[in-house]
Amino acid sequence: MIKLGIVGYGNISKGLEKAVQHAKDIELSAVFTRRPVESVKPLTHGLKVESIDNILKYKDSVDVMVLCGGSAKDLPKQGPEILANFNTVDSFDTHAQIPNYLSKMNNVGCAYGKLGIVSVGWDPGLFSIMRACFESILPVGETSTFWGKGVSQGHSDAVRRVEGVKKAIQYTIPKAEALEQARNGNHNLTARQKHLRECFVVAKDGADTSRIEESIKTMPDYFADYDTVVHFISEKEFDKNHNAMPHGGFVLRNGTTGNGNKQHLELEIKLESNPEFTASIMLAYARANYKLSKEGVIGAITVFDVAPKYLFADTYKTVVKNRL
Amino acid sequence: MIKLGIVGYGNISKGLEKAVQHAKDIELSAVFTRRPVESVKPLTHGLKVESIDNILKYKDSVDVMVLCGGSAKDLPKQGPEILANFNTVDSFDTHAQIPNYLSKMNNVGCAYGKLGIVSVGWDPGLFSIMRACFESILPVGETSTFWGKGVSQGHSDAVRRVEGVKKAIQYTIPKAEALEQARNGNHNLTARQKHLRECFVVAKDGADTSRIEESIKTMPDYFADYDTVVHFISEKEFDKNHNAMPHGGFVLRNGTTGNGNKQHLELEIKLESNPEFTASIMLAYARANYKLSKEGVIGAITVFDVAPKYLFADTYKTVVKNRL
Repeated sequence: MIKLGIVGYGNISKGLEKAVQHAKDIELSAVFTRRPVESVKPLTHGLKVESIDNILKYKDSVDVMVLCGGSAKDLPKQGPEILANFNTVDSFDTHAQIPNYLSKMNNVGCAYGKLGIVSVGWDPGLFSIMRACFESILPVGETSTFWGKGVSQGHSDAVRRVEGVKKAIQYTIPKAEALEQARNGNHNLTARQKHLRECFVVAKDGADTSRIEESIKTMPDYFADYDTVVHFISEKEFDKNHNAMPHGGFVLRNGTTGNGNKQHLELEIKLESNPEFTASIMLAYARANYKLSKEGVIGAITVFDVAPKYLFADTYKTVVKNRL
Repeated sequence: MIKLGIVGYGNISKGLEKAVQHAKDIELSAVFTRRPVESVKPLTHGLKVESIDNILKYKDSVDVMVLCGGSAKDLPKQGPEILANFNTVDSFDTHAQIPNYLSKMNNVGCAYGKLGIVSVGWDPGLFSIMRACFESILPVGETSTFWGKGVSQGHSDAVRRVEGVKKAIQYTIPKAEALEQARNGNHNLTARQKHLRECFVVAKDGADTSRIEESIKTMPDYFADYDTVVHFISEKEFDKNHNAMPHGGFVLRNGTTGNGNKQHLELEIKLESNPEFTASIMLAYARANYKLSKEGVIGAITVFDVAPKYLFADTYKTVVKNRL
């Protein structure tokens, strides 16, 4: 059995606990937290919760640590620190910072003989593989990525910071016309053309809703470059209809071969639970980390370095027979 | 530059010639044929055509041989023979025979220190990766593969063998209702429910068309288990409208995570030229073969053994920066 540690306890960690139940080759060792240990209540009966200060006690009893912290504050510090003692999988997703993070992690992994797989999830992750492989197969062509319909945590947070907002959620919605245009080969689309941003807001008592709406729609970086729709709803409706974490998206490539023959490739994902799906991918890459480490691979790598077979729970022979 | 040899000269070989024009790191050495050398006219100006009997002369000047022969008669013999002297990529696609072929190729590759990548294309190939990876990520769920709309060479050949048939082509068409059912989680579909078989036939002068139609529709293995539509058309219409080789298909998985959250993954491909697309994939795996051989990998492997990075024409750094 592959023994996993979970670092941090939030939605992805809960998704991992649920996913492990269906992985016949993986079991959980402990959850590591910076919070008071008593305040963390795992879903899994009997799963140990440890202070992160005691993590080194597990040096010989955890094969892979799955880092569930955020990219902004947690991972840049936690990633290298933990990789010095454990193999790791993380979902670092600040795109512009990935090369730098990867390089730092690689230095640590090489120095300490451990393996980190960074930026694992669906984007970056599964979608990255599609973008890169579609382009490798069809070098002449164009690729677009669309996200949604789904909750953007960053944009929801931004709306919640607006004065007078009590609760808020933001859905990123790919525009159907833009998707059709991209499918027909027009990838020259602006941010505004590609995605709609829809906000559901519960205003505080007596708040000026038209001012809230204006503040949201003109917010630079987050909303100003998009068509944004703001709905004010009751708290009751909010709690009833906006507690799920759906997401999804599309990677599509229009390539041509030979004498202008059109070749269209498209991956679509539609998720009722974004964190559970991300956790499921991280779990498969934790398995890959275990197998690659056993083969002696050290340093830091990405999903681009991992052959499909390392993700399999079944034997190679079985998968060749049934899935090739 | 990676130097490729092409073994056999047909539609996939022509696709390779066209694809190589857009691969900045690959060039063609020669085409090897069993036919009279003068009878083969490559698209590429100046490309050498050699008798397959002279293939060993190229032992030091070809990095990878792309085997474009068929799975029924050519590859079972040609694959092992050529692998004894060259690295190879082939598109062996007789599903039931793959484990056996892979094992034979692996013995040869290991004995002679060469690397063969077998069963490369879109199915088996790209679709296999999707089936296997979707399942690894979402172990609870079901997967379906649909093919088409596209020309099936085997079924077209079968129709052409019917008495009274002058020309014929058969299109495999995924049924829209079945696709919708699978997307909604019902994967329990029969061959008849999933695909329609549409034949366009030019009858010989004076042939009994109702007898031809009956012979096609009742043909065991090929048509009896399907809904089959037969159209009789003029030779002029046939030559005008049925000279392309489109294809396509879908791999879709309905998984669930956690408390029954539905997670849907779907790859769709839509090809105007099936052989050019297959050739494009084989070219990317020829590159992978070159890189893996340089790393010392020998034997025979499948697409499951090849990490995405080996397919890249660009540097790893560039792809991480732009596509991760």
